[in-house]
Amino acid sequence: MPTDAYWKDLSDVSLLASISGPADLRDLTREQLNELAWQVRDFLVEQVSRTGGHLGPNLGVVELTIALHRVFDSPRDSIVFDTGHIAYVHKLLTGRQDFGGLRSRGGLSGYPCRAESAHDVVENSHASGSLSWAAGIARGRRLRGQTDRRTVAIIGDGALTGGMAWEALNDIAADKDLPLTIIVNDNERSYAPTGGGLAEHLAQLRISRGYEDVLSWGRRTLTGTPVVGQRAFEALHGIKKGLKDIVAPQVMFEDLGLKYIGPVDGHDLDQLHTALRRARDFDGPVLVHVLTEKGHGYEPARNHEDDQFHAVGVINPETGLPLEIAGRSWTDTFSDALGQIGAQRPEVVALTAAMLIPVGLRDFAAAHPERVFDVGIAEQHGVAMAAGLAFTGLHPVVAVYSTFLNRAFDQVLMDCALHRAGVTFVLDRAGATGNDGPSHNGMWDMSLLGVVPGLRLAAPRDGETLAQELAEAVAVTDGPTVLRFPKGTEPSAVPALERADGLDVLARHGVGPGESPDVLIVAVGSMAPLSLEAGAKIAAQGHRVEVVDPRWVLPVAPALVARAAGAGSVAVVEDGVVSGGIGDRIAGALAAAGVSTPVHRFGLPKEFIEHASRAQVLTDAGLTAEQVADRLIDQLGPAAPTPRDTLRLA
Amino acid sequence: MPTDAYWKDLSDVSLLASISGPADLRDLTREQLNELAWQVRDFLVEQVSRTGGHLGPNLGVVELTIALHRVFDSPRDSIVFDTGHIAYVHKLLTGRQDFGGLRSRGGLSGYPCRAESAHDVVENSHASGSLSWAAGIARGRRLRGQTDRRTVAIIGDGALTGGMAWEALNDIAADKDLPLTIIVNDNERSYAPTGGGLAEHLAQLRISRGYEDVLSWGRRTLTGTPVVGQRAFEALHGIKKGLKDIVAPQVMFEDLGLKYIGPVDGHDLDQLHTALRRARDFDGPVLVHVLTEKGHGYEPARNHEDDQFHAVGVINPETGLPLEIAGRSWTDTFSDALGQIGAQRPEVVALTAAMLIPVGLRDFAAAHPERVFDVGIAEQHGVAMAAGLAFTGLHPVVAVYSTFLNRAFDQVLMDCALHRAGVTFVLDRAGATGNDGPSHNGMWDMSLLGVVPGLRLAAPRDGETLAQELAEAVAVTDGPTVLRFPKGTEPSAVPALERADGLDVLARHGVGPGESPDVLIVAVGSMAPLSLEAGAKIAAQGHRVEVVDPRWVLPVAPALVARAAGAGSVAVVEDGVVSGGIGDRIAGALAAAGVSTPVHRFGLPKEFIEHASRAQVLTDAGLTAEQVADRLIDQLGPAAPTPRDTLRLA
Repeated sequence: MPTDAYWKDLSDVSLLASISGPADLRDLTREQLNELAWQVRDFLVEQVSRTGGHLGPNLGVVELTIALHRVFDSPRDSIVFDTGHIAYVHKLLTGRQDFGGLRSRGGLSGYPCRAESAHDVVENSHASGSLSWAAGIARGRRLRGQTDRRTVAIIGDGALTGGMAWEALNDIAADKDLPLTIIVNDNERSYAPTGGGLAEHLAQLRISRGYEDVLSWGRRTLTGTPVVGQRAFEALHGIKKGLKDIVAPQVMFEDLGLKYIGPVDGHDLDQLHTALRRARDFDGPVLVHVLTEKGHGYEPARNHEDDQFHAVGVINPETGLPLEIAGRSWTDTFSDALGQIGAQRPEVVALTAAMLIPVGLRDFAAAHPERVFDVGIAEQHGVAMAAGLAFTGLHPVVAVYSTFLNRAFDQVLMDCALHRAGVTFVLDRAGATGNDGPSHNGMWDMSLLGVVPGLRLAAPRDGETLAQELAEAVAVTDGPTVLRFPKGTEPSAVPALERADGLDVLARHGVGPGESPDVLIVAVGSMAPLSLEAGAKIAAQGHRVEVVDPRWVLPVAPALVARAAGAGSVAVVEDGVVSGGIGDRIAGALAAAGVSTPVHRFGLPKEFIEHASRAQVLTDAGLTAEQVADRLIDQLGPAAPTPRDTLRLA
Repeated sequence: MPTDAYWKDLSDVSLLASISGPADLRDLTREQLNELAWQVRDFLVEQVSRTGGHLGPNLGVVELTIALHRVFDSPRDSIVFDTGHIAYVHKLLTGRQDFGGLRSRGGLSGYPCRAESAHDVVENSHASGSLSWAAGIARGRRLRGQTDRRTVAIIGDGALTGGMAWEALNDIAADKDLPLTIIVNDNERSYAPTGGGLAEHLAQLRISRGYEDVLSWGRRTLTGTPVVGQRAFEALHGIKKGLKDIVAPQVMFEDLGLKYIGPVDGHDLDQLHTALRRARDFDGPVLVHVLTEKGHGYEPARNHEDDQFHAVGVINPETGLPLEIAGRSWTDTFSDALGQIGAQRPEVVALTAAMLIPVGLRDFAAAHPERVFDVGIAEQHGVAMAAGLAFTGLHPVVAVYSTFLNRAFDQVLMDCALHRAGVTFVLDRAGATGNDGPSHNGMWDMSLLGVVPGLRLAAPRDGETLAQELAEAVAVTDGPTVLRFPKGTEPSAVPALERADGLDVLARHGVGPGESPDVLIVAVGSMAPLSLEAGAKIAAQGHRVEVVDPRWVLPVAPALVARAAGAGSVAVVEDGVVSGGIGDRIAGALAAAGVSTPVHRFGLPKEFIEHASRAQVLTDAGLTAEQVADRLIDQLGPAAPTPRDTLRLA
């Protein structure tokens, strides 16, 4: 537990501080529970505004999480959070109240984390997987005869648009005696308002709140006189099916075969307790539809038009305004570049998977609303649909976080590449992203996409090359193209000395044009500044160095192979996993061409990288100019004598 | 068009032979159409039993395909087949009637193929993607103002269980004015009976056939007297919504916001024409529920208990019995090995994605029904669910075709590997599969899985090593393991001379134990016999050769790196794409260890490989013993003098 000093700057959170685990919730009165909920909110607003994090979503699930830990017995029962960024309250109630280092090295993870607590199950922050996990856990428990251990999954309405969730619902619904509680945390949005037919269906259900209200009225009214009242309530309960058919519309989930309870007010602890107990005690799969409000109880979040403070940087807790003004981001530059292209080329359309604003499509959508498609959290559908759009002569630009494209690898391969569809993927947050931890690092893309026939991938090194390479990508009509760039602030411009055979030469040390260097440093995208600095350090040791940006790194350009053939060695520096990365591809291309120049690979290790700052992650991976230079100098050995030295020796 | 000689052995298919394109269907009478349907069936039974192919599914869609080509105007309108193996009838009606070389090099593809015909749109044979393609095409047409060009997708009930289909339905349902016809080809099965909540819902709808029958009766009865009858029919039609509420259960698709038409008898051309015209002329997305019977009209198929001849080898068309008795398959050996493990280890459970029999789980399911989970065509859900099962202490074995695991790469990475879940993947049909063409070749797995931290992959070289390595895989509890083996007949046993440091030494030529060879041939799995033969040829040229099977090829074993360090060169032979494959990984491991031994990589090219026999594909890729030996001899240069030669020279 945090020390007293930790608490002193906070609002009164004495009740929260007294909770060291879920058992401590059991004896609290209704009033204390409500007080606890507000203390949790105060705590979150004050703490998360210091560290940054997923504020809005957690403010929406305070009462729900309290009710979960009262009704279910974690960790005997397993609580599975989908897209675990709503687990802050869960952390607070399970003995983790030191949020000072949230999402920083040594501090709490921003997601469930098994190393932190036995109460945490799923660490993966990709959406829509919780139902599958819960199905596995519930079936495992049943098979092992652990029938007293319950399983509950909490999934957002946005995440329900993901195909995995449907696959799981379909499978679960047919397993009539599988004790499994599915809670739909319906805040009408994931990042932004949820779209699609499901969202409309949920909206219809929301209107029917009268149903639970009637039940609730019945219980309050009728159970006042013990015996008679209880029986009357049960009778009312007994006719609920008929009642529901009058008050509520038909429910899709029931068509599928799932028992449906709801809608329930997610900020009313009584309603939550009743619904969760009914679900827990039902011997089959149940879906509980809970209505919550993202940012509930925090005016700046509720009023925030875009995304209710889905994820915030460091903010002023009173106003909700950002304290740090970041520089111009890579995303901003992409947004502007796409805007210019879109204005000139009517065939360019854009796709997003429920992340219009974070991926930089807001302006394009404002300018060309009919040319933007937000498909929901549905990367697979989006990518295959892009192939369909391309079939009609349009050029789709699919803007997505690098890590989420993994969900649609098969569609990139089998729908876009196999059909030579002119589709451009723009992978934001590529490379090490840092604080969000292992499932957000966009470090896999180049290794995966390197196997896709006909796919071309560029890694811009600065804003200007991003704009240029986007224009080049959108001009390709006979296969998929990819741009990838990191999270965060765009670097200063990195000018080229010259462009030769499609490669940008960024620096030469002791090498004349047409001459071959001792070491050819291949800088992949955002690694250019680092590579330049490392190159200068190596040159200072007497080595002849050339630094190039191949611009299009997949497939490996013949011009790069030719250049590498003459070099003493090649060093490839990339912001992705080394295994199967650009270094491996270049080495493979050299081997295929019979070139024996050794290739030194610098990149991220084949490991899941824990949350820490991007700078820390890169340093750990040996990706600083100093480390790259030292390792290379070590591997190169002493510099060969220069012509002048040779003369002197002679 | 085929020559007359081609037709002479066939039944009377004169009407079929007169159809050179969809336009020829327009003027046929009802009787002629029915006759055509039976001629198509005769043709398919006779032809596909000669070549092998997807017989049952195509027999089920004869009338549906005829109706499609009468109601829609392909290729102006786009007809998108999901899992394109039901496109045989479509091929016959669009000018492609020479089925003699079906699925063989130079013959027709077993799937739609743009190079064959302008009527073909989607070549990908992975399930559940058609709705996304159709959404893209319909939206593209709308944006381009081509409002007179319609889009129709045909998807099976099995494929609807795939998450992509849900993502697309959700997105499409909200696009109220998108003209798009979705035909659900409901034969109650994909390979085997479809499971899950959706299947039960479809079954409920099937019972309500009275609805269309009533409408049909109304039309036939009331339209007898022209004016009055037509009006009466329209009145009846007008009250259809109310009528439906009485006759039919509530429809899930309508809850989602999709207009629903059905169920329709898929073997009744009148019903089909009516329903498809209604759908075509509706200005929004419509789902037409068509009931078909797999294998319709062919008794041996209809009576086939397992899968109604989903896909057949060469069979006797009269009896439906296989003409060729294949040897023992890799799948058989896996099945037996899993049976033995399952009998001893109650914690071992098995998962399949709607392919229980093809992946060899039939016996395991019979022995342990409660320990097998068929999740539907839902690889993503299955893989994440496996992680959940592992969380409870079970050890899931996920049996899937190699190519389909691409759908669940993200779940292998983020659900299984990140959580260090003891899950074993068994990839059948890995490597070149041949006749099914580009989307069935299981050539990507090793390149993709090579980036997954903590994942171990073995490629058994024969039945015995398959059984051994499966036992080893199932014993691993701290991370995912993978076994991969090809389609087809298991080779004769390939014994090892010895096992050293976990590597099996298969052959030594001129190399004593402890000595290093001129070339170390690394045989990956099924490439062992070829590697041995190539090794012998190379040795015959005077080179000292060692052939090893590393057994576990991912991650690269330190023992292999050590062995490679001493060798003159390394040759890696693998049945997967070279790019990012085992050769690349070994080269990367050598580079990381500072070892400069050159690595020669032999594998499949980074291309989509057209349908042909597996042997043809391997030959084209240079994967015969002769070619590998020749290329290596060329690269190795003249053999170094042996010690004896050296003595002689001295």
